[in-house]
Amino acid sequence: MVLGIDIGGTTIGFGLVNANGEISHRHKFVTADYSDFHAFLLDLKKHMEERQLLNKIEAVGVGAPNGNFYTGCIDFAPNLDWGEHIAVSKEVQRVFGLPSWLSNDANAAAAGEKQYGGAKLMRDFAVITLGTGVGSGFYVNGEMLQGKYGNGGEFGHVIVEENGRLCGCGNKGCLETYTSVTGLMTTVKKLQEESYSSLLSMDVVLNGKLVADAAEKGDAIAIKAFSITSTYLGKALANLITLFDPEAIFLLGGLAQSGEMIFKETQEVMEANLMPLFKGKVKLLPSELNDADAAILGAAAIAAEQMQD
Amino acid sequence: MVLGIDIGGTTIGFGLVNANGEISHRHKFVTADYSDFHAFLLDLKKHMEERQLLNKIEAVGVGAPNGNFYTGCIDFAPNLDWGEHIAVSKEVQRVFGLPSWLSNDANAAAAGEKQYGGAKLMRDFAVITLGTGVGSGFYVNGEMLQGKYGNGGEFGHVIVEENGRLCGCGNKGCLETYTSVTGLMTTVKKLQEESYSSLLSMDVVLNGKLVADAAEKGDAIAIKAFSITSTYLGKALANLITLFDPEAIFLLGGLAQSGEMIFKETQEVMEANLMPLFKGKVKLLPSELNDADAAILGAAAIAAEQMQD
Repeated sequence: MVLGIDIGGTTIGFGLVNANGEISHRHKFVTADYSDFHAFLLDLKKHMEERQLLNKIEAVGVGAPNGNFYTGCIDFAPNLDWGEHIAVSKEVQRVFGLPSWLSNDANAAAAGEKQYGGAKLMRDFAVITLGTGVGSGFYVNGEMLQGKYGNGGEFGHVIVEENGRLCGCGNKGCLETYTSVTGLMTTVKKLQEESYSSLLSMDVVLNGKLVADAAEKGDAIAIKAFSITSTYLGKALANLITLFDPEAIFLLGGLAQSGEMIFKETQEVMEANLMPLFKGKVKLLPSELNDADAAILGAAAIAAEQMQD
Repeated sequence: MVLGIDIGGTTIGFGLVNANGEISHRHKFVTADYSDFHAFLLDLKKHMEERQLLNKIEAVGVGAPNGNFYTGCIDFAPNLDWGEHIAVSKEVQRVFGLPSWLSNDANAAAAGEKQYGGAKLMRDFAVITLGTGVGSGFYVNGEMLQGKYGNGGEFGHVIVEENGRLCGCGNKGCLETYTSVTGLMTTVKKLQEESYSSLLSMDVVLNGKLVADAAEKGDAIAIKAFSITSTYLGKALANLITLFDPEAIFLLGGLAQSGEMIFKETQEVMEANLMPLFKGKVKLLPSELNDADAAILGAAAIAAEQMQD
C-alpha cells in the first residue's frame, strides 16, 4: 500500500492506495491548521498510528503545486505559508522512515493515469488538467518527462496569443488564461459585456458547470464561450502533437467534465491543424480517473512507479 | 567502426565513423544513378569490398527524410524515386549481414550531437536544423523522443501564424515557412517588394549566406529579415522550453551559420517570452558538429547508440 498525499492551499487530502488503484482510509486535513509541513506530518503520523495503519504503508507519494521531483522540495508555492522551500521528501522520510517521492500535481496526474487509469499500456501520452489553471504531464518512451530542472510540462504557459490576456506567471497570452475554468469564465464575462442576449446573469458567481449547463440549454454566450475555448485548446494540442507524436491525450479537471461541449470542437480544431502525417491518429480522451480521486491517486502513483523500478 | 549513410534526393553521402566521431573513407554517390535502394546497396558493398573496408564495419546507421526508426522504412519521401515504402533497415541487414537502424535526418542530427557533439553529457536537449526546412530532434531522460508512431519532433510544422504562409505540408503558418533558409529568403523578397532601399538585387539568386553577408554590411532589408526570422524562432523556442525544460538547444544548418545575426535576437526574444521559472537557464548553442559532417555523423550515431544499449 502506498500513502498518497495531495497538498493544496486549502486542504491536504490523503489515502492509502493499493495496486489496483483503490483508495481506502481517505481523509483530509485543513492546511491552515499547521504552522509548517513538519507539524502536519506529525499529526498525519498520529492519525495513521491510531488507526493501526502505519505498518501497512510501504512508500509515500506527494503531489503539490511547484513540487520538484529531483529536489523533493516545494519551492515558492503561492498558496502555502510554510516557507519558500519545503523539503517534503526529506521530511517524510525522516518522520515516517519510509521511501518518499514528490512531484508537481500535473505530473502526478499523468503518473496516476499510467499507473491506475487509461494509460496503463501506453508509453507516449499526455495528460492535460483543465482546472483553475492548466497543467500537463507527459510520458515519453514510458518515462515521465521531468526536464533538466524538473519543470517540464508547463503546457498552460505556452503562449498562444500575442499580447493576450495577462497570466498569473507575468506573461501575456498563456494558454491557461483561455482554456482553464477561470479562462472560460473570463471569456463569458467578455461576451456578456458585448451583448445582453445571455441567460447567464452577471450576478451569479460563475463556474464551469454553470456555463456548461447554460450551453446545454442553448445559451448563445455559453456556447460561444465553449467554442472559443475549444479553438484555443485544439490549436495548442495540434502543436503539442507535432512535437510529441503521442498515442493519446487525456483531459482531466473541471472543463474536461463538460463532455462533448469541450471534446467535440477541440478534437475538430486539433485535427484541422495537424499536418497529414498526424491526422486521425491521436486519441483525445477523458481521463479514466475519477476527478475526486485523481489527486490522491496521482500522488500515490509517483511513489508506486519508483517502487517498481 | 560504424558506417553512416545520409540519403538525400541529390546525393547519398557515407563514411566510416569511429568512436571519437572521426569520419574516414568519406564518399558520395549520385542518387539518380540507382533505380532502387537495393541497386545502391550492391554498389556500396562493392565499393567497400574493393577498399577492403567491409570487415571493419560493425553496424550501419542510415539517416533520411521520412525515415521511421520503428519500422526501418522510408515512407513517401518526396525527393526519392524508389517507391512509396523503402525497407531500408531490412535491405541493409540482408545485403551487409550487419545490424542496421534508420532514423529521419533531424532525429539523426540530435543523435549525432549526443554521440559526438556538444550534448555528450546531456540527458534533455533539443537540436533544431535550420536548412531548406526546419527539423528537430529531442532527447528526454537520455533517450530520443520518437513518439508513438516514430514521427515525434516535427518542430518545423508547429503553427506559429494564423492563416500564415502556405507550407509544403499543406498547412498554413508552419514555423519552417518563416525560419528556414527558404523562409528567410521569402521574407527578404516580401520586404523588397515593399521597399527599394536594399542592396540586395532581386536578380541575384538569393541564399542564406548572401542575406547574412548583406546584413553584416548594414543592408536594412537583410537586417530586418533576420530580425523577423529571429522573432518567430525565439517565440517558438520559448514555447518549446515551456514543454520540455531542456538543458540546451542546439542550432544547426544554413541559418545557424549566420552566427550572432540569428543567435542574438533569437535568444533575446526567447528569454522575453519565458515564464520566470525558465528564464536564464536554457543554453542556446551552435551545434558542435561541422555542418558538412553532421548528416553522416548523425546517421552513424543512430546505429552507435543502439550498439551501446
